[in-house]
Amino acid sequence: MNALSPANKLENLRTIMKKYQQDAFIAMSADPHMSEYLPDYWKIREWLTGFTGSVGTIVVTQNFAGLWVDGRYWVQAEQQLENTGYVLQKQTPDPASTHLSWLSQHLTKDAKISVNGNTISTQQYSALSELAIKHSFFIQTDLDLIDEIWTERPTLPLQPIWQMADDLNAQTRLEKIAAIRHKLIQKKATGHFISALDDIAWILNCRGSDVEYNPVFLAHLYISAKRTTIFVDAHKLSDELKNQLKSEQIELLPYAQTIEYLSNLQQQIILIDSNKVSISHAQAIEQHNQLIQDINPSTLFKSQKHPSEIHHIRHAMIKDGVALCHFFHWLDTASTNGESINELTIDIMITGFRAQQQGFLGLSFSTIAGFNANGALPHYRATEESFSDIAGNGLLLIDSGAQYADGTTDITRVVPIGNTSIEQKRDYTLVLKCHIALAQTVFPEGIASPLLDSITRQTLWKYGLDYRHGTGHGVGYALNVHEGPQVISYYAPATSFTKMHEGMISSNEPGLYHQGKYGIRIENLVVNKIKHFEDTTYGHFLEFETLTLCPINLSCIILELLNDDEKAWLNQYHQTVRARLAPHLQGDVLNWLNEHTQAI
Amino acid sequence: MNALSPANKLENLRTIMKKYQQDAFIAMSADPHMSEYLPDYWKIREWLTGFTGSVGTIVVTQNFAGLWVDGRYWVQAEQQLENTGYVLQKQTPDPASTHLSWLSQHLTKDAKISVNGNTISTQQYSALSELAIKHSFFIQTDLDLIDEIWTERPTLPLQPIWQMADDLNAQTRLEKIAAIRHKLIQKKATGHFISALDDIAWILNCRGSDVEYNPVFLAHLYISAKRTTIFVDAHKLSDELKNQLKSEQIELLPYAQTIEYLSNLQQQIILIDSNKVSISHAQAIEQHNQLIQDINPSTLFKSQKHPSEIHHIRHAMIKDGVALCHFFHWLDTASTNGESINELTIDIMITGFRAQQQGFLGLSFSTIAGFNANGALPHYRATEESFSDIAGNGLLLIDSGAQYADGTTDITRVVPIGNTSIEQKRDYTLVLKCHIALAQTVFPEGIASPLLDSITRQTLWKYGLDYRHGTGHGVGYALNVHEGPQVISYYAPATSFTKMHEGMISSNEPGLYHQGKYGIRIENLVVNKIKHFEDTTYGHFLEFETLTLCPINLSCIILELLNDDEKAWLNQYHQTVRARLAPHLQGDVLNWLNEHTQAI
Repeated sequence: MNALSPANKLENLRTIMKKYQQDAFIAMSADPHMSEYLPDYWKIREWLTGFTGSVGTIVVTQNFAGLWVDGRYWVQAEQQLENTGYVLQKQTPDPASTHLSWLSQHLTKDAKISVNGNTISTQQYSALSELAIKHSFFIQTDLDLIDEIWTERPTLPLQPIWQMADDLNAQTRLEKIAAIRHKLIQKKATGHFISALDDIAWILNCRGSDVEYNPVFLAHLYISAKRTTIFVDAHKLSDELKNQLKSEQIELLPYAQTIEYLSNLQQQIILIDSNKVSISHAQAIEQHNQLIQDINPSTLFKSQKHPSEIHHIRHAMIKDGVALCHFFHWLDTASTNGESINELTIDIMITGFRAQQQGFLGLSFSTIAGFNANGALPHYRATEESFSDIAGNGLLLIDSGAQYADGTTDITRVVPIGNTSIEQKRDYTLVLKCHIALAQTVFPEGIASPLLDSITRQTLWKYGLDYRHGTGHGVGYALNVHEGPQVISYYAPATSFTKMHEGMISSNEPGLYHQGKYGIRIENLVVNKIKHFEDTTYGHFLEFETLTLCPINLSCIILELLNDDEKAWLNQYHQTVRARLAPHLQGDVLNWLNEHTQAI
Repeated sequence: MNALSPANKLENLRTIMKKYQQDAFIAMSADPHMSEYLPDYWKIREWLTGFTGSVGTIVVTQNFAGLWVDGRYWVQAEQQLENTGYVLQKQTPDPASTHLSWLSQHLTKDAKISVNGNTISTQQYSALSELAIKHSFFIQTDLDLIDEIWTERPTLPLQPIWQMADDLNAQTRLEKIAAIRHKLIQKKATGHFISALDDIAWILNCRGSDVEYNPVFLAHLYISAKRTTIFVDAHKLSDELKNQLKSEQIELLPYAQTIEYLSNLQQQIILIDSNKVSISHAQAIEQHNQLIQDINPSTLFKSQKHPSEIHHIRHAMIKDGVALCHFFHWLDTASTNGESINELTIDIMITGFRAQQQGFLGLSFSTIAGFNANGALPHYRATEESFSDIAGNGLLLIDSGAQYADGTTDITRVVPIGNTSIEQKRDYTLVLKCHIALAQTVFPEGIASPLLDSITRQTLWKYGLDYRHGTGHGVGYALNVHEGPQVISYYAPATSFTKMHEGMISSNEPGLYHQGKYGIRIENLVVNKIKHFEDTTYGHFLEFETLTLCPINLSCIILELLNDDEKAWLNQYHQTVRARLAPHLQGDVLNWLNEHTQAI
């Protein structure tokens, strides 16, 4: 039984660093696939520090231990790092706030830095390496220091892999592979190595459950002009799937043999996405081959959902909406009846209603149910050790989502409990105005997605308010709830990969957070669709179709703050929600839906 | 008398290319200072092709001659290139549309490309050089082919240089040089070479008139820890100015000795802005010194106008507003009385009224007065050979500006002539809504300026409309009407230099153009000022103060398309215009002002 505290583990880490003569140790939140959600085996940063946020980088020396996190996690990290020996380092868009800047200022010439090459992307390594050259540091990537001190380290997952039902695929995997090969020819590459788990799942029309929330499986994929090779533990595949892959001339090799295979390739020109491939893999390829760096073609392909995929997602949204109506009806009733509810109850109930829906696979991320001050932590998660009762007056923020066989959902609603103050209503209405501003916008096809963020935020800015997270992230099709390449955030660089195209699905989730008081966020998923105009002199335009189907609470709105356009949007949205969900509801829940979708 | 046609000149150029065995000839619109407005000596592209737009790149081979221009000039270039032998190449943000892409596709291995090293920036050369390495082309920068065929080439200008009045300078030149030296220390540079004429004029608190519209003088400047050297023709300076510079230990060297001086520098670390220094100068420096590339510190300093400078600009705006009221009153009267007016008359009259104002130095760019179809050319200029009478029905677009000793102006208004159609009124109102959207916005200090463009354009986008030019450019203080680094345009890259800071002045000029019919643009200058909020949790915010003072035509507005906020902005604006201008007007012109600033 491993009951070491973070402080104990830090001591052990420093001892092992001395043994290997390493002056600094870096751990990013990463695995060999550069995933957002990690198998337990790779949760090194969480195991060391106890910080449970999704992103963070630690640097440890003999006299310093720091954790770098962005604005979403400052409050949470400050709490979780207490007595661990780690100091919170607030990371902002300013390069001076990064761990790289810290290293350049605090390490001395000839310092040795240890970072596991499996957990740092080729791109990140390149920045670190540039720093090392400038300051004469030495980087060691082939040590796994943690393995020596993590005595009860979990093993890698071995969950079964299954195929998507044929009617849910817009293309066969051979069609997808052919499209990728076509791109390789254009880019003058002879091979393509892929580590990104959602790209691999999308290409192969398969899904798994090796990590929480994301229906993916641990694998690497190599595609050349003639061959397709999956590196995966064969135990995960049924005989039927193995035979089918064989008949499609897709070969299987053990997951553990990936690096050896790459090292043996010769004289190829191999395309990798340097943000999505670890330096260990890139260095193996570079031994006898040339690398070309570009985004994975599959990342762009899968971001532009096919009309048939959007059709399935609309169906998944009806199921999710039905579950949500049952849940919110229950919540209203329980709250009115004075039943004892807490933040954990919310998770249990909302998950329960979703689990009754056909094709439910699990949650798409851990439910955030934050009452009052907890709602002000954008990525709060109630635990058995720490949760709030939902009683008295205030705002309850619920951000949740599910994976269905035919689509991925992600929705945030805010529910008033007891009485709501005028400030809370004002803030709620301002956030709603931001949400509607983005939902209603029309924009040129191909515009860089970050440019749409200022349209969303302008209402809050006029009040001197803002929120420290993006307004929108891409969302997968029965895949990761966070997927690229587009991102609606004014902090994000407007690269050529963030261009908006037909079929991309994004979240629309403006918010507002008053630390220690309450938080507000209103989130729907939206899909880019062509807006037709007679005069096409100015090129093609896109607009958003809102996919999520669930009433937006009306009782917190200050009607005078909404203009006619905004009221019209909200009424139209509620009319659509009612029309699509009513046929699937009865009795009290149907009454609840009708009441909560009335025109204002 | 040189009366060669562009086709004759092209023939001569091809002959001289053969003589020097050059396969391709490139000419950008540039001089050794990377200026927008060029002395006649450097108007190579215009002399060759007859195309009078401000930006364009030509490529000539033995069997091809092309001119690359952006969307602003497509219509104009098509007209002006007729029968010249040059083919219009439409440049868009797509890299495949550039002359570099053309070169890579059409030249063969070992091709020799001639480009005058004085007319290509270090940055542009670097892109060309990369292409040349990839395709095995050879670039020759030390030939001036044009000099051999341009028999009556103008000489370089020799206009006098004068000092700004002391009370108009926020800092002395020694203070500005000290601030630059401080930046050099931060950047670990020992020297700084500057070619940008507006930077040099700003640093030295001097002005000149070597080029049209921009009150600058031809010079280069070198600043090191101990020395400041101006490379300039000494004839341009009065003895008084020479003595004063001497007393400030600022030395003068001949303009023609710049490259020789740079070649003789040794073991310095020299900062240059590679977008603003020619490759000829950069290569001279690189012989014995190290180059550091960054934006000129003076570019950032001068973009953030000092409160005293803004005070002076407000005064210049009153003078400009008074001149404009006289002009528009005259126009209304003349038009109503059926007097014969044409586009050239507009330029003469508006310039005449401005010339009566104290401190008038000249125009800040050539007046654009475009009636109906001519107004649809965003950079139209009426000439003696080609202009329209202003009669019948339609819209007259007037974009004009002046240089005063205490500020630079730039304003566009649209005036209805005779009857206005419902489509014209709708379009006018939509453009006005875009203008007001930007004028009213509040945004975080430090945001990249391109991100504000989507706020401006969203109204037009909802109608499937757009305009192919930026919404805003920086404006100088009694200096260039186009200055960097900020730019409000969704086409522009959101670099770290485009961050919005207090004191920056930009234009706010959305438009709409129906080719062959009419054009609309409504432009004011605005300055970034701090918007104070009690709660500073979200950092500092900025808002725009509109500086330009001139009524916006009310008779074209469809009132039902404006919301209450927009009406309130317009009424408030007109109240300010009236309050500031009325004390300086009398009689009919005062009546005109009062009538045109009535609340709607």
